[in-house]
Amino acid sequence: MTYPLPAPRPQVGQPIRDLSTPLPLIDETKLEANIARVQSYMDGHGIAFRPHIKTHKIPAIAARQVAAGAKGINCQKITEAEVFADAGFEDLLITFNILGSEKHKRLVDLNTRISGLKVVADSEITVRGLSCAFSQSRPLTVLVECDTGGGRCGVQSPEAAIALAEMIAAAPGLTFGGILTYPKADSEDAVEAFFAATIAGLSARGIPCPIVSNGGTPSLFSAHKVTTATEHRAGTYVYNDRAMARSGHCSLDDCAMHILATVVSRPTPDRAILDAGSKALTSDLLGFSDYGMIVDYPEAVISGLSEEHGTVDLSKVSGRRPEIGDKVRIIPNHTCVVSNLFGIMTFHRDGFVTRVEEVAARGLVW
Amino acid sequence: MTYPLPAPRPQVGQPIRDLSTPLPLIDETKLEANIARVQSYMDGHGIAFRPHIKTHKIPAIAARQVAAGAKGINCQKITEAEVFADAGFEDLLITFNILGSEKHKRLVDLNTRISGLKVVADSEITVRGLSCAFSQSRPLTVLVECDTGGGRCGVQSPEAAIALAEMIAAAPGLTFGGILTYPKADSEDAVEAFFAATIAGLSARGIPCPIVSNGGTPSLFSAHKVTTATEHRAGTYVYNDRAMARSGHCSLDDCAMHILATVVSRPTPDRAILDAGSKALTSDLLGFSDYGMIVDYPEAVISGLSEEHGTVDLSKVSGRRPEIGDKVRIIPNHTCVVSNLFGIMTFHRDGFVTRVEEVAARGLVW
Repeated sequence: MTYPLPAPRPQVGQPIRDLSTPLPLIDETKLEANIARVQSYMDGHGIAFRPHIKTHKIPAIAARQVAAGAKGINCQKITEAEVFADAGFEDLLITFNILGSEKHKRLVDLNTRISGLKVVADSEITVRGLSCAFSQSRPLTVLVECDTGGGRCGVQSPEAAIALAEMIAAAPGLTFGGILTYPKADSEDAVEAFFAATIAGLSARGIPCPIVSNGGTPSLFSAHKVTTATEHRAGTYVYNDRAMARSGHCSLDDCAMHILATVVSRPTPDRAILDAGSKALTSDLLGFSDYGMIVDYPEAVISGLSEEHGTVDLSKVSGRRPEIGDKVRIIPNHTCVVSNLFGIMTFHRDGFVTRVEEVAARGLVW
Repeated sequence: MTYPLPAPRPQVGQPIRDLSTPLPLIDETKLEANIARVQSYMDGHGIAFRPHIKTHKIPAIAARQVAAGAKGINCQKITEAEVFADAGFEDLLITFNILGSEKHKRLVDLNTRISGLKVVADSEITVRGLSCAFSQSRPLTVLVECDTGGGRCGVQSPEAAIALAEMIAAAPGLTFGGILTYPKADSEDAVEAFFAATIAGLSARGIPCPIVSNGGTPSLFSAHKVTTATEHRAGTYVYNDRAMARSGHCSLDDCAMHILATVVSRPTPDRAILDAGSKALTSDLLGFSDYGMIVDYPEAVISGLSEEHGTVDLSKVSGRRPEIGDKVRIIPNHTCVVSNLFGIMTFHRDGFVTRVEEVAARGLVW
C-alpha cells in the first residue's frame, strides 16, 4: 500500500447502491431526455439555444448539448470559459460585467484563442475598461445587459440600452454584439416590450443588433412568446431539480441528479441523521422550508443541515421508516450549487455506473 | 503563451487591494490571536484542546494549532483524516458514525498508519460494523457519542451511553475510548449532568473512561463549567465569523476571514451587485436575514444571492455609496462552508499577501 491513497472513485459497472456516500449521481437516461426535450422545443420555434455550463461545469456534457443542436455555450466566469476553450468550444458567451486588469489580460488571451468570445456590459465604466484592454485588430464582442425586471444587473430602460450600444459600437477594440436579459420567470411580455423598443431604437440609428438573448429555465417553454429573441440561454434544465419541478418546468421524475446518502444514526423514533449536510446539499432553500426531497420517503422532511449531517424529521412517515445503514436518494432544491461542491460527478444508467467525469470548471477562484 | 493558463494565484507580497475577486482572505494577525486566545483559556483551565479542521482544511493551520498546545485534531470525514495523516498528524478523532465496507477498509488502513486514531458511535449497528472490520492485533478506539440536547446524533440517555460503552469494551477489535457530545450552545449544565451520570455508571462497572469530550465554539469560553470534560473540540474559533460574533464568542474585529469582492454593477441608486454570490459566500443564513456583512458599508444589506452575483440594498447607506469597480470586504455568516468552496486560501498581514495554501482536504467525496 502506498500513501496517500487515491481518492475514492466509483468504478464503471458498479451498482450505485454499493457506492460510498454522500455522492451526487446523474441518471444518463433523464439527462439525455432533458437535453433532447429542450433542444426539440427550441428547434421547433427557430430559437437558437445556448446552454449555461454553470449547472454541470463538465465539457463532456456541453459537448452532448452542442451535438444535440445548441449553437454555443454560456459561462459565468473567465476561469470557466478558459476550461471550455481548452476543451475546444468556440462560441462562448460570458454573461458577466468583467472588470480589472488581471481579468482583462486573461480575457484578451482568451479572445485570441477562440473565434466566438462574447461578454456583456451594463455600464460605461465596464465598456471603457474593455475598450482600453482590447485592440482594433482583435476586437471583443460586447452585448448590452438589460434589466427587464429580474432585478440583478442590467441597464434600466431601452433608452439606456440604446445609449450603451452606441457607446460600444463607437468604442475602439469593441464590437456591439446585441442585447441580453436574465429575466424573472413568467415575464415574457416585459422582456418582449423591452427588447422591441431597444431594437427599434437601434434600427433607427442604423446599428445592427445580431443577437437578442433571453434566458432562464423556469419559464423556458414560454420562450417563443418573446418573438424578438434570437437565442435562449438556460442551465438548470440539463439536470433539473426540486425548484424547477415546483416551477412547472419539469416533473420530479425529470430530475437527473440525486444525492445518494446513508442513514448514519436513528437517535429517536422520529429522527434520522443522514451523512449529507450543507457541504453536500448546500443551504439553498429557494423558497422551500426544507433542504431537499427524499425520493424513497416523500413524507420525511430534511429539517436541518449541519456541515456533514442532515437531520430528518420522520414524524409524518407512515409505514416503514429508514434504518441505520439504509441508503436514500435526495432530489436537491438547487442542482447547480451541488455540482460546485464535488470534484467528480458519477453517471449511471439503470442503476449501474456508466462514467465518472471531473467537474473541470468547478470551484475556480474567479 | 502555453495553454491551459495556470489558475490565477495571488503572489506573496502583493497588496490584497490588487487581487482579483471574489477571493477569501485570512488575516494572519487575527488568526494568530484567535489560536492563542482559545489555547490560553484551555491551558488556564487544564482542558485538553482538540481543534476541528473542518473550518480550514489546511494542514499548515492545524500545525499552528498543535504548536500552540492543541493535543490533537478533529476531522469529520475519513478523506479529511487521510489528508491530515499524510501531513503527519497522529492524534486524530473522526466525529462520525462510520458505516459501510469501503469506509471500513480505508479506516483500517488509516489505523495502521497513525497511532492515535479514534472514531465515535451511537448505535449497536455502527459498533458491530466496526468490530467486524477491525482485528484484535490493531484495535480501533471508539467513543460513545451522546445527545445532551444538541438534537443531532448521539445516544439519548446516560443509561444508553453506558450500555453502548459496555458493548464496545467487550467487542473484538475495539477499545472503548470515552464519551463525547456536540452540545447546543449555553447548555453546560445539561452536558455536565449527562457526563457525570455516565461516568458514575461506567465507574461502577469498572470501565475506564479516558476521554470525556465536549465541543463547540459559541460557548467555548464556558467550557470550564463542564468539570467532567477532559477535552474540548472547536473549529470555527480559528477564523471566526458573523454568527460567532453574534453569539458573543468574539467581536466582528476578531473575524480573520474576509471575502474580497468587487462592485460590478450599480443598476439603480439603491442597488449594487457584487461578484460574490452563493458560490463564494454560500447560502448559509444561520438565523440572519442577509448573506454577510460588508465591513466597509455596515448599513448595506446583502439581500439576495444568485450563484455568482450578490445583490446589495444600499437604501440605508448614508454618505458615500460604493461605485462600480470598488472592492469591499465581507464577513461571512459562516466561515467553515466558505473554505469548502475554494481550492486555495490566501493569507495576508497588514494588507500584503504572506502565503497561499491549498485547501487540501476540501471538497473530497466523503
